[in-house]
Amino acid sequence: MAVIAPSFKPVFALPHSLADLFLDFAAPYGVMDAPDLTAARITHVAPLDVAQQGAFSFLSNQKLRGQLLDSQASVIALTQADYDDLVAQHAVNELTIYVCTPAPYLLYAHIARRLYFNTAVQAGVHATAVVAPTARVDATAQIDARVVVGERVVVGAGVHLKAGVVLGDDVVVQDGCVLHPNVTVYEGCEIGARCIVHAGAVIGADGFGFAPTKAGWLKIAQVGRVLIGNDVEIGANTTIDRGALNDTVIHDGVKLDNQIQIAHNCEIGKHTAIASCVGIAGSTTIGENCMIGGAAMIGGHLNIVANTVVSGATAVPSSIEQAGQYTGILPLMLHRDWERNASLIRHLSDLRKRLRGLEKAGSANDVTKIE
Amino acid sequence: MAVIAPSFKPVFALPHSLADLFLDFAAPYGVMDAPDLTAARITHVAPLDVAQQGAFSFLSNQKLRGQLLDSQASVIALTQADYDDLVAQHAVNELTIYVCTPAPYLLYAHIARRLYFNTAVQAGVHATAVVAPTARVDATAQIDARVVVGERVVVGAGVHLKAGVVLGDDVVVQDGCVLHPNVTVYEGCEIGARCIVHAGAVIGADGFGFAPTKAGWLKIAQVGRVLIGNDVEIGANTTIDRGALNDTVIHDGVKLDNQIQIAHNCEIGKHTAIASCVGIAGSTTIGENCMIGGAAMIGGHLNIVANTVVSGATAVPSSIEQAGQYTGILPLMLHRDWERNASLIRHLSDLRKRLRGLEKAGSANDVTKIE
Amino acid sequence: MAVIAPSFKPVFALPHSLADLFLDFAAPYGVMDAPDLTAARITHVAPLDVAQQGAFSFLSNQKLRGQLLDSQASVIALTQADYDDLVAQHAVNELTIYVCTPAPYLLYAHIARRLYFNTAVQAGVHATAVVAPTARVDATAQIDARVVVGERVVVGAGVHLKAGVVLGDDVVVQDGCVLHPNVTVYEGCEIGARCIVHAGAVIGADGFGFAPTKAGWLKIAQVGRVLIGNDVEIGANTTIDRGALNDTVIHDGVKLDNQIQIAHNCEIGKHTAIASCVGIAGSTTIGENCMIGGAAMIGGHLNIVANTVVSGATAVPSSIEQAGQYTGILPLMLHRDWERNASLIRHLSDLRKRLRGLEKAGSANDVTKIE
Repeated sequence: MAVIAPSFKPVFALPHSLADLFLDFAAPYGVMDAPDLTAARITHVAPLDVAQQGAFSFLSNQKLRGQLLDSQASVIALTQADYDDLVAQHAVNELTIYVCTPAPYLLYAHIARRLYFNTAVQAGVHATAVVAPTARVDATAQIDARVVVGERVVVGAGVHLKAGVVLGDDVVVQDGCVLHPNVTVYEGCEIGARCIVHAGAVIGADGFGFAPTKAGWLKIAQVGRVLIGNDVEIGANTTIDRGALNDTVIHDGVKLDNQIQIAHNCEIGKHTAIASCVGIAGSTTIGENCMIGGAAMIGGHLNIVANTVVSGATAVPSSIEQAGQYTGILPLMLHRDWERNASLIRHLSDLRKRLRGLEKAGSANDVTKIE
Repeated sequence: MAVIAPSFKPVFALPHSLADLFLDFAAPYGVMDAPDLTAARITHVAPLDVAQQGAFSFLSNQKLRGQLLDSQASVIALTQADYDDLVAQHAVNELTIYVCTPAPYLLYAHIARRLYFNTAVQAGVHATAVVAPTARVDATAQIDARVVVGERVVVGAGVHLKAGVVLGDDVVVQDGCVLHPNVTVYEGCEIGARCIVHAGAVIGADGFGFAPTKAGWLKIAQVGRVLIGNDVEIGANTTIDRGALNDTVIHDGVKLDNQIQIAHNCEIGKHTAIASCVGIAGSTTIGENCMIGGAAMIGGHLNIVANTVVSGATAVPSSIEQAGQYTGILPLMLHRDWERNASLIRHLSDLRKRLRGLEKAGSANDVTKIE
Repeated sequence: MAVIAPSFKPVFALPHSLADLFLDFAAPYGVMDAPDLTAARITHVAPLDVAQQGAFSFLSNQKLRGQLLDSQASVIALTQADYDDLVAQHAVNELTIYVCTPAPYLLYAHIARRLYFNTAVQAGVHATAVVAPTARVDATAQIDARVVVGERVVVGAGVHLKAGVVLGDDVVVQDGCVLHPNVTVYEGCEIGARCIVHAGAVIGADGFGFAPTKAGWLKIAQVGRVLIGNDVEIGANTTIDRGALNDTVIHDGVKLDNQIQIAHNCEIGKHTAIASCVGIAGSTTIGENCMIGGAAMIGGHLNIVANTVVSGATAVPSSIEQAGQYTGILPLMLHRDWERNASLIRHLSDLRKRLRGLEKAGSANDVTKIE
């Protein structure tokens, strides 16, 4: 089984002239040199090394510059400097159209969106879907097989609910959302416009709230909701719990990767991006534009200020009040070295004590040293 | 998008007199001063700061005392001391009924349960559910759309299986359980009475058991079951694997948060509570009344004694034989500090060696020092 | 609720003579002493201590040797040495047949497979399954209730798709695969022969790819696929993202436990086994025959060489170029000790500095010491 080029097909007919495409999407990103593109027919995107005729490709990672030389892509976006280098090496491929721009990756992103994102859903409700009579489903929405929609649910224009999605009573899903298969949204939760929710995600399960009693744990009713803003993406099997009394809130433009857990009453600020496997305990607030690395674990009742970066695999047991990058990863060692070193961490305070003893003994003989 | 008050409605008509409600639920918790409540009509619960007429609220977290002053809640539970303070400040709201009790949070918990937990399921099997002919489903159970129930399954009285639940053959779900959407229970597993299983949870998948052979890993049949006691709650997307030969056992009253992984042949003792993202490797036994913090990771074949507390994000690679709180979190640092400090952990044994060298050199000159 | 013997029943009639069973499965593993087994009727497997008549059991873990004495198993596999011990103790049970082999656990594995693995699926498509007209489903495949199969999907011979499975358009599932309930496979992904995918797993969700722009994160189309080789097992609620441009690749014989996250463009080499809760960030390559412990977290764009062992709960922030076992776990302490020691990690570089100061002061008086 080899790594091969992607087999996706464009989802709608392309314009005959690439110039149109570039005019629509690329202009703001400074396409500096757009030769006559009328003849080129882009049918897909591909990496430089496997691109074939019809492919749009790009150079952004400088480690891959060598791939420029033999690439068969029909169009390549790159910086002026990289293009000039190619010219200097007499390595320009006459069958390739080069598009110079300060932002080749962004240009690629726009082209790929245009090629692959099918925003034209096929309106209608599949015969096997179960939609409550009091639900209001927009006529332009697409409800696939085996979807279940509860009472008084509101489904907006152009929404696509894929197979196996379950929406509890009183859920709101605003215009343009895509919910992938087997997503569950509990009663009363609301999802803003243009959100993408990946398969298996669970929105609005009960927060983990119990009071200790002599007879065991007493469950606390979780009566808040989950409120999700616009343009949020939620990864596969990610879980976001409903609030206990107030709501759990995910603001506009937040991006959540797979298998993230967000506990009750958290609030995640605009445009914050959180990588996979992160856990955030209850009632924690994360500011805008933060980046939380994969598998970071964030304690409860904390406040993380805007623009904070938390490295992957880092535990955050207390609030962060100054923006910056924070890290707490135990270095990896060969196991035999770890056995020798790690247990010493348990004795660091002893080491410091012994060091102090030596310093005192030394300073008794050294009047110039003051601690 | 603002944080707003919860929109849940009471699920059944409230008693005309709050006194009844208090008589039923609150008496054991020492309501000390219950004025005439006949006129009050509680329609919902709400935090002090957003409560409006009809709301039941409470003061338990002393940081929120300031919210007492302007709260519009119809009824507020609080301690006698907090009430006396209010009187001393001449800040009593004449439209509010104050209920003094040593346990305001527990009183709240009971009121909220009474208001929001609808134990009256709507008996019946939805037309789109697929129930095997040999299954025995109690006439009082509610089986929602698209549920699939296997052969010889037993579903008890008042059980509610929500949309998309799949029960494999020979599963037992005892009285009063609620299984939320898209839960999967594999063949032969048993769930005790009054359990709550949240969406996407998987109970009884094969344990991770393989024997190495020259041809690769040989799968070991996982022929044990998962046995779950009474009054257990299991969070969204949590997974509990079936035993290899013996069973995996979750005892009465255990509370499991979201995205927990419990491997084959684990046994979790009564009333132990485990926060989200915890992983427990195979054949580990955790005693009664333990509390395991979020994202703690517990190794295999261990024994954790009763009443142990494990802090969040702590790895447990060996058994714990003495109850207490255990922690192993690397402190968070600014990334530049971490770069300077963390690599030294790899050299702790060298540091100790150098320290010993200095101490020996010193003690050669100091006959009073004995190590 | 007690731990009791497994209730699984054999899935097909057993041969009258165990000798056949041993001939088929056990011969390569050196059964050294097979007495006449004609009379024995194995009906199940069980641990030594709970085995009853009809049980096949084995001794592999030497800690359990004491259980040999009173075991009621009909057949016990053990090493010649353990059997000789039993003879020396005059503790041979006359009702038990002992089978001596250097590999009792492997013999058990084969017997258990023969008893419990039902490879004979019941061909047919359930009336409530929704199969697209352009899908090609082999006549020997079993498609259970509520399965949804997309356009142009290929389902091979003997495949079993359990309730609630959703296959997107253009998915390929090769011969002999079992997909457990509520698994989702996104468009265009391919699964090789004889794979097992456990409930709730999600294969092919979008990788986490966004480009920063002034207006927020711009989603990058994820146009690669997930390609899964033969004989791969994937645990419950595990997620494997599709590639951004190239594919994400899981090679033959890989075993993945529950709740693992594999990000876009990763490649996992043959026969590598990964325990539960592991996260692997994007574009990382893991070689063949690696073993990754539970909850290990592996950074992005790394290369882990073949035969590497990563201990559980270990973070891997950089590539591993030499095979070996690597560990990075902060030792567990009583919380009060942790409070004293852990903060010193933040000051390790200060400790080293002070140590250097002392050493310099000392070496000024000691010409024999050279650092």
